[in-house]
Amino acid sequence: MDSQTPMSSSIQLAHGSGGLMTRELLDQIIFSTFKNPFLEQKHDGAIVPLKGPVVISTDSFVVSPIFFAGGNIGDLAINGTVNDVAMCGGVPEFISLGFIIEEGLDTSDFVKIVQTIKAAAEEAGVLIVTGDTKVVESGKGDKIFINTTGIGSPHPRAHISMDRIRPGDQLLVSGPIAAHGMAILSQREGLQFESEIRSDTTCLNHLVSDLLDEFGDQVHLLRDPTRGGISSVCSEIAQDSALGVLLRETALPLDPQVAAACEMLGLDPLYVANEGIFCAIVDAEAAPKILERMKSHPKGGRAALIGEIRSEYPGKVVMESAVGGSRIVTPLIGEQLPRIC
Amino acid sequence: MDSQTPMSSSIQLAHGSGGLMTRELLDQIIFSTFKNPFLEQKHDGAIVPLKGPVVISTDSFVVSPIFFAGGNIGDLAINGTVNDVAMCGGVPEFISLGFIIEEGLDTSDFVKIVQTIKAAAEEAGVLIVTGDTKVVESGKGDKIFINTTGIGSPHPRAHISMDRIRPGDQLLVSGPIAAHGMAILSQREGLQFESEIRSDTTCLNHLVSDLLDEFGDQVHLLRDPTRGGISSVCSEIAQDSALGVLLRETALPLDPQVAAACEMLGLDPLYVANEGIFCAIVDAEAAPKILERMKSHPKGGRAALIGEIRSEYPGKVVMESAVGGSRIVTPLIGEQLPRIC
Repeated sequence: MDSQTPMSSSIQLAHGSGGLMTRELLDQIIFSTFKNPFLEQKHDGAIVPLKGPVVISTDSFVVSPIFFAGGNIGDLAINGTVNDVAMCGGVPEFISLGFIIEEGLDTSDFVKIVQTIKAAAEEAGVLIVTGDTKVVESGKGDKIFINTTGIGSPHPRAHISMDRIRPGDQLLVSGPIAAHGMAILSQREGLQFESEIRSDTTCLNHLVSDLLDEFGDQVHLLRDPTRGGISSVCSEIAQDSALGVLLRETALPLDPQVAAACEMLGLDPLYVANEGIFCAIVDAEAAPKILERMKSHPKGGRAALIGEIRSEYPGKVVMESAVGGSRIVTPLIGEQLPRIC
Repeated sequence: MDSQTPMSSSIQLAHGSGGLMTRELLDQIIFSTFKNPFLEQKHDGAIVPLKGPVVISTDSFVVSPIFFAGGNIGDLAINGTVNDVAMCGGVPEFISLGFIIEEGLDTSDFVKIVQTIKAAAEEAGVLIVTGDTKVVESGKGDKIFINTTGIGSPHPRAHISMDRIRPGDQLLVSGPIAAHGMAILSQREGLQFESEIRSDTTCLNHLVSDLLDEFGDQVHLLRDPTRGGISSVCSEIAQDSALGVLLRETALPLDPQVAAACEMLGLDPLYVANEGIFCAIVDAEAAPKILERMKSHPKGGRAALIGEIRSEYPGKVVMESAVGGSRIVTPLIGEQLPRIC
């Protein structure tokens, strides 16, 4: 923060007025952190040098608590949208940033979040090019909500679409499941484990780009299993492709302390949110090489082949259990963990 | 709404879970309303056929009350972002839509808002191509907040930038001021006037495009005076251009009942928010023709020439009053009307 007058120690309604105090907040915290030529246009938006077509994705983040083991709402908001653009086969480049702040938020917490956003944007290789800040009265929000919208260009070799899925396609996951949801939940519940459960929030765009560079249209579909977890992604795939998804329980990568936390709370890790892994439906022949490539990347070291596409049970997800039986995985209906992202 | 099972009568936390209830909300209310090939990609985002460079702008809307005379948070959210893209010299084409809903919102209110969004998007000529819905617990939000991000291409004849402003440039406004802020405020305060004060929320992109088609780079800067009103726009221009802005009080278009409401509540209309007008700083010679063109357009019928750029008082805004004197217009410092947009 470079400043003439020091900022007040908490965010006030007037910081959302559009007047001098808004300007002060922007100049002292936002513009000084995210300095770039696009923000300096000081337009009501930004003009960015992207060649069409354009991939666009948006997400609002309402996670509670806003600080958690492994991250905070700031990197979650960048990584979440960066990953959604990547899942469409896009190469994310520019991000818009909208804050809805509850009056009374500690300015130091806000600065910490903004700094985390900066670091996450740098790691993902995206620029914050435009934004907006609103402040609502105490009791009309919950500390801070963040919307991010990401734009980028389609990867030149991407050909990702639900209708490219074929029976026999293999289902890969890029890392261990259920970490984000269990990190949030164990923090909310005050649970202690031998080693802390940390959110897996991270950007996946570099790994996705590497895979597309090398394997192009052998990657048929990408999805990140955030809210609703692996089961929701698989249910959507089964429903939208009118094919079946087979999952192999023993193949699912799952950290022991995450498994223990799930058991303790009676949660099935298949339904728990992730923020740093993705599912890839890939060509059967290429699958071993794609898996190998994922494992050689820092964001995919624990990738695994967890299932495949089957024609036998259209629209259904079936899990082969550790002991050899199988069961239908039903989609999540209601809310398992509210405000997980 | 086309439906198999009817939606519940209010929005519940589970509608934000990422599971079947989220899908139900999307299918029954969102996808069925905004039907278009981009939404039907059913990606985590959308791939849209925009040629670069790209103009992007974002805004979150937290207006209270969510329904008001002349509009609701839905058209406000579309028009606000459409107008911001237009103010950058962009032609808005695609919109992302992020909802943060407080648990318990009447489903019928949500549907009404979504329908208003649809109508506003149609009028503006933009498509909703991707979106996100989160639900927070009762008491952790306030009915509904909406983020919209708009993208489009720069108008081929636009050359809009703060550094194009010159002494002698003329300041036009496209319509009467202070209507939106006073509509919200009189509704909050329960004030009654002979004729209802209605928000001016509307899309300005078509008028802006017409002006740019005809006058191109004779339009030096465009700004919509939303939060903070005309005074904040003029203060920003004065500060960022290091030139002075002269305003002529008698030239400001102002509806009598809006003026009366401002007087009753002790508010200066210069500081009150607008949602359906813009300020244009234009070449002095072209100004009369640009004004004439504005007046011939349905969105600019009451446009006026309200001031000019002066070199005498750099960084300052000066108002020539009705009786001939002049005063410095200070920028808004704190909050005049919280949650006006």
